[in-house]
Amino acid sequence: MQIDSQSRDVFYVSDGTAITCETLGHAVLGQFPFVANEKTFPFVESDEKLTDVIKQIEFSYQRHGVPPLVFFSIVVPEIRARLLQVSAHCYDVLENIVQRVQADTETEPQPKLQRSRSISKNTDTYFDRIAAIEYTLAHDDGMSLKDIEQADIVLLGVSRSGKTPTSLYMAMQFGLRVVNYPFIHDDMRALKLLPAFEIHRHKLFGLTINAERLTAIRQNRLAGSEYASVHQCEHELANVEALFRREAIPYINTSSLSVEEISARILEKAGLKRHLC
Amino acid sequence: MQIDSQSRDVFYVSDGTAITCETLGHAVLGQFPFVANEKTFPFVESDEKLTDVIKQIEFSYQRHGVPPLVFFSIVVPEIRARLLQVSAHCYDVLENIVQRVQADTETEPQPKLQRSRSISKNTDTYFDRIAAIEYTLAHDDGMSLKDIEQADIVLLGVSRSGKTPTSLYMAMQFGLRVVNYPFIHDDMRALKLLPAFEIHRHKLFGLTINAERLTAIRQNRLAGSEYASVHQCEHELANVEALFRREAIPYINTSSLSVEEISARILEKAGLKRHLC
Repeated sequence: MQIDSQSRDVFYVSDGTAITCETLGHAVLGQFPFVANEKTFPFVESDEKLTDVIKQIEFSYQRHGVPPLVFFSIVVPEIRARLLQVSAHCYDVLENIVQRVQADTETEPQPKLQRSRSISKNTDTYFDRIAAIEYTLAHDDGMSLKDIEQADIVLLGVSRSGKTPTSLYMAMQFGLRVVNYPFIHDDMRALKLLPAFEIHRHKLFGLTINAERLTAIRQNRLAGSEYASVHQCEHELANVEALFRREAIPYINTSSLSVEEISARILEKAGLKRHLC
Repeated sequence: MQIDSQSRDVFYVSDGTAITCETLGHAVLGQFPFVANEKTFPFVESDEKLTDVIKQIEFSYQRHGVPPLVFFSIVVPEIRARLLQVSAHCYDVLENIVQRVQADTETEPQPKLQRSRSISKNTDTYFDRIAAIEYTLAHDDGMSLKDIEQADIVLLGVSRSGKTPTSLYMAMQFGLRVVNYPFIHDDMRALKLLPAFEIHRHKLFGLTINAERLTAIRQNRLAGSEYASVHQCEHELANVEALFRREAIPYINTSSLSVEEISARILEKAGLKRHLC
């Protein structure tokens, strides 16, 4: 029997989207040294579907000789009970905390399907979120400054500093209306703020990035170009950071941060409330 | 002392983005009947920041006379220990499962900051995700069919059936390249597939929606228009659904689903692998 201690098969099994299982599973596995081979099974609401999942889990066990890890969330008791008999280590991602909240608040839980946030249940929230995404799309990359007074935040930065993904994530995840505006090549010599930004100063937020990282990202896009050269990247960044300091615009360096981290840090620094969509 | 059993103050406290705390907290609270007044504190890495958080938690307790609920994830033992002394019910969102995985796999955990997925750690994944977002933006709403052979999936549907938010979510969350293409007004009479789609049939996926829901969404956009009329919505939907059936294109009804649910269902039905970004 061959046991590879470096890697583990991991299954996420849920009767909903499996987003909660995946999120918690990743956070847990992030603390362990083994590599996870992950597979997700959402909407496991029937015996038939469960049979397929169980087959794959048993196959993994047969193949590797070590029980795989299963992070699950299943409401229907019969399906739950069948899953628990599989040859795997099974972790109910909610059970322990639900029981503790139940005891602490002396309130009966009412288990239900579709526990992950569902925008459709609240029509206002739904419209807000869709409107935020549309607004942000229409104001991507300096495309328009129309209705800038409706913006929750205005992101500034050089090309490829992370403005677009960050803007879309903030719209999608937090229902924020984001304008993002690039500083481009020709601006660099006498860099100053657009007059249109003056009365919205409190909404401005800068993104910067290390020159080596920016070079790598731009090389990936336009290899060998002046635009992607270390010299050009350094020049642009020095000018833009000087502007941020001169104008007292808060800014963060995105080099070693994920889109999630950048967004969470901006919200925190800008004192923006998270609308939980 | 006034105890309002209908609502509870809830705090998410993390030394990272707090995304895991929020996700798990929502899922847990979704099973209880009380309304949650939620507040999130990310990046609580210092004694100073913790002092502010503790102050707010104690204030909530003083004000309501019931201990608030705290969902937390903190690595540094001293900060963790101080938080645990607050007048609240505190739940470590990872502890229980980490301990069980440790015992089951006989592996020591290595607690670390930034447990939520971080695209920056893997440069290839980072580029893939950014490329997917860019591709999807460039192929939104029928804007372009260039490089359609690179698409992972092509979403079809009438205006306002949920194509754009779904496409962006799939790109952002799963690193998929999505084309979305609307059926517009004039197409409706003799609806057929674009020739460009013929050799990509296996990538086509339809979105539909109930006529009442579509009318409400369109009224929100263009109140009183023909475009938003029940008659027009019914007409478009009937034609598009007939096309989906005729051409054997798989489709789902988005009416009562969140963007997360729509995306997860499409991935499942289309047999697409989730690239976990």
